Amino acid sequence: METMTKNVSVEKSKTSKISEVDFNNLSFGSVYTDHMLVCDFVNGAWQTPKVVPYQPITLEPSAKIFHYGQSIFEGMKAYKDENGDAWLFRPLENFKRLNKSAKRLAIPELPEAYFMEGLTTLLQVEKDWIPQNPGSSLYVRPFILASGTGFHASPADEYKFIIACAPSGAYFSGKVKVLIEENYSRAANGGVGYAKAGGNYAGQFYPTQLAIEKGYNQVIWTDDNTHEYIEEAGAMNIFVRINDTLITGPTSDRILDGITRKSILEIAEDQGIATEVRKITVSEVVEAAKNGSLKEMFGAGTAAVVSPIAGFGYQGTDYELPELDNSYATQLKTYITDIQYNRTEDKFGWRYPVE
Amino acid sequence: METMTKNVSVEKSKTSKISEVDFNNLSFGSVYTDHMLVCDFVNGAWQTPKVVPYQPITLEPSAKIFHYGQSIFEGMKAYKDENGDAWLFRPLENFKRLNKSAKRLAIPELPEAYFMEGLTTLLQVEKDWIPQNPGSSLYVRPFILASGTGFHASPADEYKFIIACAPSGAYFSGKVKVLIEENYSRAANGGVGYAKAGGNYAGQFYPTQLAIEKGYNQVIWTDDNTHEYIEEAGAMNIFVRINDTLITGPTSDRILDGITRKSILEIAEDQGIATEVRKITVSEVVEAAKNGSLKEMFGAGTAAVVSPIAGFGYQGTDYELPELDNSYATQLKTYITDIQYNRTEDKFGWRYPVE
Ligand SMILES: Cc1ncc(COP(=O)(O)O)c(C=O)c1O
Ligand SMILES: Cc1ncc(COP(=O)(O)O)c(C=O)c1O
Repeated sequence: METMTKNVSVEKSKTSKISEVDFNNLSFGSVYTDHMLVCDFVNGAWQTPKVVPYQPITLEPSAKIFHYGQSIFEGMKAYKDENGDAWLFRPLENFKRLNKSAKRLAIPELPEAYFMEGLTTLLQVEKDWIPQNPGSSLYVRPFILASGTGFHASPADEYKFIIACAPSGAYFSGKVKVLIEENYSRAANGGVGYAKAGGNYAGQFYPTQLAIEKGYNQVIWTDDNTHEYIEEAGAMNIFVRINDTLITGPTSDRILDGITRKSILEIAEDQGIATEVRKITVSEVVEAAKNGSLKEMFGAGTAAVVSPIAGFGYQGTDYELPELDNSYATQLKTYITDIQYNRTEDKFGWRYPVE
Repeated sequence: METMTKNVSVEKSKTSKISEVDFNNLSFGSVYTDHMLVCDFVNGAWQTPKVVPYQPITLEPSAKIFHYGQSIFEGMKAYKDENGDAWLFRPLENFKRLNKSAKRLAIPELPEAYFMEGLTTLLQVEKDWIPQNPGSSLYVRPFILASGTGFHASPADEYKFIIACAPSGAYFSGKVKVLIEENYSRAANGGVGYAKAGGNYAGQFYPTQLAIEKGYNQVIWTDDNTHEYIEEAGAMNIFVRINDTLITGPTSDRILDGITRKSILEIAEDQGIATEVRKITVSEVVEAAKNGSLKEMFGAGTAAVVSPIAGFGYQGTDYELPELDNSYATQLKTYITDIQYNRTEDKFGWRYPVE
């Protein structure tokens, strides 16, 4: 599509690192491709995006990103099918969410064409980096950082929008043991929890480390006021299956409106699984675990897709979840990844060709 | 003091920008001195700090500071007295708070000697940059950023501790009109509000912009659950005077333990002003404004020292505060700045020589 790239210039790197990469042995997001997209906000406007060789970023020590956490990001994946064609999954949703985050963080919103043409141009250049191995994909990380300077706590006047890519294997392997959090919180009412703001993630590290020291893999976040409502699973949305009903919490200003979450809801409904979007209390989950009606819990997000939970800790007691032969987690993960990797018909219109 | 600098190396810059600076016309934190302190955390340890020429910072696009907001900072000032001697104000308190923030943000804590010797060595090198003009000072900005890389949301394995300095005039000029916030929040219970984490500040920008559009200068933050308790004034602690009692809220995990706040409390008590540290409700402040018992409100913080409030908006109504001849704000600001600029005896032992 010639018109798709009219706004994006391409400067090719002289060499490629691709031969150094073991595509059969990829970790998550730690090897980067040869190019990146860069788009600067200066003089009150986003400038023409450029694909350039992957390279370090140089900023003044007084750049606001270093002091005031003014940054946002997105996470998406590019998939390669059996024919070698490349696909994205609902990329416009990532674009819209980036701008929602931008608004809340007082970052100037990005034009849709700059995001979409920048993204597809970069992925065309990096097509060889999209892995074909099962479960692998090219993790795509759009982000915006405040490059403008000043020690005054106010929005920057310059920004950088960047897309970098990392060929990646699966994010988690195996089932995770989670701790339902009773003290720490990730988001305030009226805060930035619904945005993919950098600061939301750093705030999770310490409580997560404490949970890991106690033998858990992840924290289940609860509301900051009562710790009685289950809100997110680490950096994923959370699903709970009680008997045969699949339940997830409603989005709010504390909860990220996950693209995997809403896709899973649509798929489940389409497949005749009963779903409920409503607040989930810790006490009902504990009760359901005790009386055996709690069949499954899983996290949902782009990186891990679906991350089944083996059990949870709460107030010093550990609760195990049963092993199921036909779990919703497996069924839904298979369906959504079949769409992503172009192994099945896409009746929802979610697949987006990289071309 | 020879021993003070044994751990810090100094590389002098070849030229100085100092002659380009108009010291009679300084804004806040937008001109930087010739040198900065840099100290790297690599291989599991903080390395020897170095004073180097002020220079840009180069990081990988995958540096965690850009994605997960893993950064903290401090704000302090260096003052020059009539004799040309330079002073800091309670710098150990900034050091301790930096490490409190570090812990909450999963950043490795810094050794005291690296902070204190790094700080004093840098200030000795930059002594000519400390302004002598009334109200001016050298604003000193210690900060730590996550330089380690990876798209996995987990703590970085490398960090940079930096101190940069900016000769500065007063932060605010004149009295400010504030808006008591009813929708947005800066901090969650169990969150990172008590830390000087970068992300806390970016989250304030948008609500502050909305308040500015409505004709206010700043937001008064309230608790995220009920919006019924007054917590902070922008990036300052808040004081309210009802009749002759000076009241400030207790610190909590949502409120920064300000050094100006606690110094003001001690000074007020010493001067025979009745003080109370207790929760302040919006309704009592509105009530006091209506019946005339609300005499003063002011913000307190390193940058502005004391920032008197002219009036506040709440639920669509504006309340004006009276003009006072002998305000606590003026009395306390005079006293604390007299200590800072070595114009009075320092009975509290707060002044710290730069030597
Ligand atoms: C806090 C949080 N919740 C949920 C999600 C899941 O969102 P998505 O499915 O769009 O990746 C993410 C991002 O991956 C997240 O960071
Ligand atoms: C949120 C917040 N509250 C209060 C203060 C005041 O603290 P200090 O008096 O130590 O500067 C600051 C920093 O200046 C701050 O960022």
